[in-house]
Amino acid sequence: MSAAAAAKPILYSYFRSSCSWRVRIALALKGISYDLVPVNLIKDGGQQFSAEFKALNPMQQVPALKIDGITLSQSLAIINYLEEVHPNPRLLPQDPKKRAQVRMIADHIASGIQPLQNLSVLKQMGEKKIEWAQNCITSGFQALEQILQHTAGRYCVGDEVSMADLCLVPQVANAERFKVDMGPYPTITRINKVLLELEAFKISHPSRQPDTPAELRA
Amino acid sequence: MSAAAAAKPILYSYFRSSCSWRVRIALALKGISYDLVPVNLIKDGGQQFSAEFKALNPMQQVPALKIDGITLSQSLAIINYLEEVHPNPRLLPQDPKKRAQVRMIADHIASGIQPLQNLSVLKQMGEKKIEWAQNCITSGFQALEQILQHTAGRYCVGDEVSMADLCLVPQVANAERFKVDMGPYPTITRINKVLLELEAFKISHPSRQPDTPAELRA
Repeated sequence: MSAAAAAKPILYSYFRSSCSWRVRIALALKGISYDLVPVNLIKDGGQQFSAEFKALNPMQQVPALKIDGITLSQSLAIINYLEEVHPNPRLLPQDPKKRAQVRMIADHIASGIQPLQNLSVLKQMGEKKIEWAQNCITSGFQALEQILQHTAGRYCVGDEVSMADLCLVPQVANAERFKVDMGPYPTITRINKVLLELEAFKISHPSRQPDTPAELRA
Repeated sequence: MSAAAAAKPILYSYFRSSCSWRVRIALALKGISYDLVPVNLIKDGGQQFSAEFKALNPMQQVPALKIDGITLSQSLAIINYLEEVHPNPRLLPQDPKKRAQVRMIADHIASGIQPLQNLSVLKQMGEKKIEWAQNCITSGFQALEQILQHTAGRYCVGDEVSMADLCLVPQVANAERFKVDMGPYPTITRINKVLLELEAFKISHPSRQPDTPAELRA
C-alpha cells in the first residue's frame, strides 16, 4: 500500500451542505474514519472560490474527498466509490431492479431537486429566493411521494438503508429550512423520521459538525 | 422468462432532450433494440404533463424506459441498470478510481449543468433565458475542461467510451444550441468531435429521431 493509499481520507465539507451530509452519512455507515476540513460557503465571499480550493476541486463545490491518492467530487460519485472499495454495509440492494430504483430516487433528488435550490442558484433569485426553493422542492417531493408508494418498505427502497436514503434526509432538512409544508408527503416524512434515529445519520447531522456555529449546535 | 421480461423495452423520448439522448446512446452501444414512444415536451403545453404520462413517470420527464417489467426514469439510473444487465460493451472502466472519475464527470454534467438549463427552469427565466443557460454551461465547462486535463485520453476518461462520454456529447449539443463560445474548451471540443464519429452517437442523434421535425432532420 502506497503512502497516499494508506493516508486517512480528507473530507472537504460545509456543515449545512446537503451534498456534504450525504457523504458524511456514507462514511459513518461504513465506519470509515476521516479528517474533516471545513469549507465555509458564505464567509470571505465563499471559501470554495479560493485559488487553493479551486486547484483541489475545479467545480468549486463541496463535498470533495481526498482518498487513495485521488480527489473526488460529486457526492454520488464519491458514495459509489466508497461502495466499491468498502462494500460493507452495502448501500445498494443486490437485486438489479431494486438497485435501479435506488439510483432513480437518488438521482431524482441529486439532479432533479437539489441543484435547483442550491446556494449558487438562489443567490441569483433575489427576493424570489424562498418561493423559488419551495417550488422546486414541492414539485420534486410530489413525484417522490408517488414513487415511494411503489418502492418503500421501512426505508426508501425496501427495508435496507440505501443511497436513496442518504439523499432523502438532507433534502428533507433543506425543505424544512425553506419552510415547505410537509403535510402532503406522509411517506417521505415517515422514512425521514426513522432514518434520523440511526446513529450514522445523527453523528453526521449539520447540527453536530466541527464547523457548526454555536447557535445552531444540537 | 416472464412475458414482461421478454417484451422489447420501450423508451419514452424527445428528440431534443439531452437526457433522452444519453440513454439512446447507451442502448445503441449495447445493441439493445427498443421501441420509441415520442413525448413532445412543447406541444399541447407539454405531453409529459398528461395524466397518462404522469401515471407512467411521476417525475413527468423524459427519458423513461419500460424494461423487464419495471419503468425507470432518470437517465443515469437507466444507464446503470443497462450496464448491470447488459454488461458488454462496458460503460464503466474496470479500475475503481477510473470508474469514480467517470461518475464524477457524468454527475458534474447531470447534476451540475443540465438541470440548471433544462426547459422547465428556462421557462421561468423569461427574457434572461439565453443568458442564464449560457452562464450555467460556461461555468460548468470551465470546471470540466480542467478535470479532463487529468482524466482524458481519446475520450473523457482514458481510451474507452464511458458514461461520461454519453453525458458530454448531448451537453455540448445544448451548448451549441445556446451559442456558447466553445473556444476556451479545446479538450471538450476534441473529445466531442471524436465521439460524434461513432455509429452509436450518430444513430441516436437528435437530428435522426422519429420525432425530429422535418426542418431539423439530418
